Amino acid sequence: MDLESILSDVGRNLRSSLIRELLKYASVPGSISFGGGVPDPNTFPRHELAEIAKEVIEKEYAYTLQYNTTEGDDELAKQMIKLLERIYGITNLDRSNLLFTTGSQQALDLIARIFLDKDSICFVEFPVYLGAASAFRMTFTNFETVPLQEDGMDVDYLERKLQELDKLGKIKNVKFIYSVPNFHNPAGVTMSLEKRKKLIEIAERYDILILEDDPYGLLRFEGEHLPSLYKLGGPDRVVLLNTFSKILTPGLRIGVIVGRADIVRKATLAKQAADLCSPSLNQRIAARFLERYDLLEYLKPGIELYRKKKNTMIKALEEEFADMKGAKWVNPQGGLFVWFTLPEGYDTMEMFETAKEKKIYYIPGQAFTVDDSISSSMRLSFCLPPEEKIIEGVKRLKEVVVEYGKKKGLI
Amino acid sequence: MDLESILSDVGRNLRSSLIRELLKYASVPGSISFGGGVPDPNTFPRHELAEIAKEVIEKEYAYTLQYNTTEGDDELAKQMIKLLERIYGITNLDRSNLLFTTGSQQALDLIARIFLDKDSICFVEFPVYLGAASAFRMTFTNFETVPLQEDGMDVDYLERKLQELDKLGKIKNVKFIYSVPNFHNPAGVTMSLEKRKKLIEIAERYDILILEDDPYGLLRFEGEHLPSLYKLGGPDRVVLLNTFSKILTPGLRIGVIVGRADIVRKATLAKQAADLCSPSLNQRIAARFLERYDLLEYLKPGIELYRKKKNTMIKALEEEFADMKGAKWVNPQGGLFVWFTLPEGYDTMEMFETAKEKKIYYIPGQAFTVDDSISSSMRLSFCLPPEEKIIEGVKRLKEVVVEYGKKKGLI
Repeated sequence: MDLESILSDVGRNLRSSLIRELLKYASVPGSISFGGGVPDPNTFPRHELAEIAKEVIEKEYAYTLQYNTTEGDDELAKQMIKLLERIYGITNLDRSNLLFTTGSQQALDLIARIFLDKDSICFVEFPVYLGAASAFRMTFTNFETVPLQEDGMDVDYLERKLQELDKLGKIKNVKFIYSVPNFHNPAGVTMSLEKRKKLIEIAERYDILILEDDPYGLLRFEGEHLPSLYKLGGPDRVVLLNTFSKILTPGLRIGVIVGRADIVRKATLAKQAADLCSPSLNQRIAARFLERYDLLEYLKPGIELYRKKKNTMIKALEEEFADMKGAKWVNPQGGLFVWFTLPEGYDTMEMFETAKEKKIYYIPGQAFTVDDSISSSMRLSFCLPPEEKIIEGVKRLKEVVVEYGKKKGLI
Repeated sequence: MDLESILSDVGRNLRSSLIRELLKYASVPGSISFGGGVPDPNTFPRHELAEIAKEVIEKEYAYTLQYNTTEGDDELAKQMIKLLERIYGITNLDRSNLLFTTGSQQALDLIARIFLDKDSICFVEFPVYLGAASAFRMTFTNFETVPLQEDGMDVDYLERKLQELDKLGKIKNVKFIYSVPNFHNPAGVTMSLEKRKKLIEIAERYDILILEDDPYGLLRFEGEHLPSLYKLGGPDRVVLLNTFSKILTPGLRIGVIVGRADIVRKATLAKQAADLCSPSLNQRIAARFLERYDLLEYLKPGIELYRKKKNTMIKALEEEFADMKGAKWVNPQGGLFVWFTLPEGYDTMEMFETAKEKKIYYIPGQAFTVDDSISSSMRLSFCLPPEEKIIEGVKRLKEVVVEYGKKKGLI
């Protein structure tokens, strides 16, 4: 049987996430990887989770080992509503505003499925979180990209683009504006309060939904907490995605869609056809953890650890690259990533071959484009390697940049 | 914001599973439900699973609480390959032939996404497993239904249909034939060996893929094990779906796609965009369970329990309905369901209103059609209620049938 000839358009069009492919090299002995956005396993509350897991299987087996509803665990919903109030000051939520998903990746996929068609347009930031791009791409939607600046999305650019589309009679095709306002993946930037307000105002004017993705919001090292787009724009304007992957553990695979009941309902129906329900066990473990422990207190040492690692990386970049004209990096106020841009002429995808030789891994900027365009940027994750490896890794990176730069006649 | 106006075609077209809606009533006090196909929680090895969960979180936290690969746990794959050899006699499988999914519902969705387009045709049995129909429907594929007989799919009918499509030049649009050969959900029937061979032969002749779904195969009460379509047709012809939901516990949400490496690879890429990965924890729990315990031995008391309950239901149906001309039921050799058909003129969906009054619940046959056509059949699940409730439930069902029949002038 010839597989290609019987694939659907989606099947033919699928491609592997560049990150997943590149990370295969990261397990080579002696490697240092700034690649994956995976949390440090030592930040996971394993003893607490182990106890809870045992207990909820023994005592609540008729629930934890059984099928769940598609909507997910009501106990977790109760805890999540409290947590959302505490984190974001969001009130008036009830059960019908929440759908638990398999990580926020499934949330992105479900949202894509209920909103995007081939003739749809969705706005994303540039660079874009690639998990979102790969989920949206399955619908064959059209992308419009809005450049990120130091204080977040270029909202003036967004406004001009929407004006143009309006003139062309295409504003109805715009389904949503996707944004990661806090400690952007990969760009590391945070949207200012002013821009948040402006974004809501523009979305209101053109009656367009905003899809806010906030996996890292709680991982703030410095500066002040800014109100979420959901808090500012309300459920008629914003759908909020969140996840426990970066603040508790990715292993449970729990994400959540927070939004207007009718939108959540549609996403629930899509999930029903997509996988019926997420595991009861994992949701109940998370519910009991939130019930018994103060997640925000528990997060503090992890945040402190990431803050230190981030500072180590920034200091190492300054030491190695301060004298390189045109090289620049974003110093993030939180999250897991530093966005590092080399001078014009560098192609970080091509340079990856040199990096492999020196056993230092990063994610080339090309992975965060919607059209595979060449990029002189790269994403550096500081969350997993210990501090001395971060220093050593940046040194290796400098060697890579010099060697590649010489080969290409750039230095 | 007007939701309807911004939904995608998929979003607009979504509808709730009839089963999920009907089962809401089943929690009314005093109810007896033959509705859901959920296993009896007392068959779950909760003590073993509780111990294993605690242990794999404590000792393997860097794996169990971390992101997984999209393909899933290699340890579980090892165990699964052994199990597939033991159950089906399938040999020569390696890691690249397996993808773990969120239950077999996600497997159905991923297969649909990589194969089905709007102009595609997929063959399903009639009645059809509704989880499959709802996953396939999201692609707007065209359905061809093949009637089920006492010994499974009417393969002669299938052959005639394929001949017709071939004459019309549409055979290229046929993407696969979906079948549940053992203890069909909802029809209860099992495909004979002769028909299995004929099905493979037809599929070979027209070069069409078979999608074999076998969630209940191990739950055999009587009769002899028959070779799977995968075993008969091989990986070039058949993709096999399986799940731990009915043989270990649904709460872990672990399904598996077994097939040719290139097909599995495509499904893996679709899963990468759909939810990145399934929880490591759940897969490792299942792997350690399979390593330490003999699943087939452990299943025996559960099978015995279901066998007894099934016999109780068949006996009750004989007692209540033997004198009703035109009423008939399938006595299944395994699985969880009895398919019960009333004489012509009965509409089991309309009759559900009467059933609700008497607090007895079943799934109307209409739920298992691809076009919502009226049905005089219903699916009765015997797995959850205790035996005395099964007897009482069938009595109530008789009252419902008599009351409805009188109202409609059928008796």
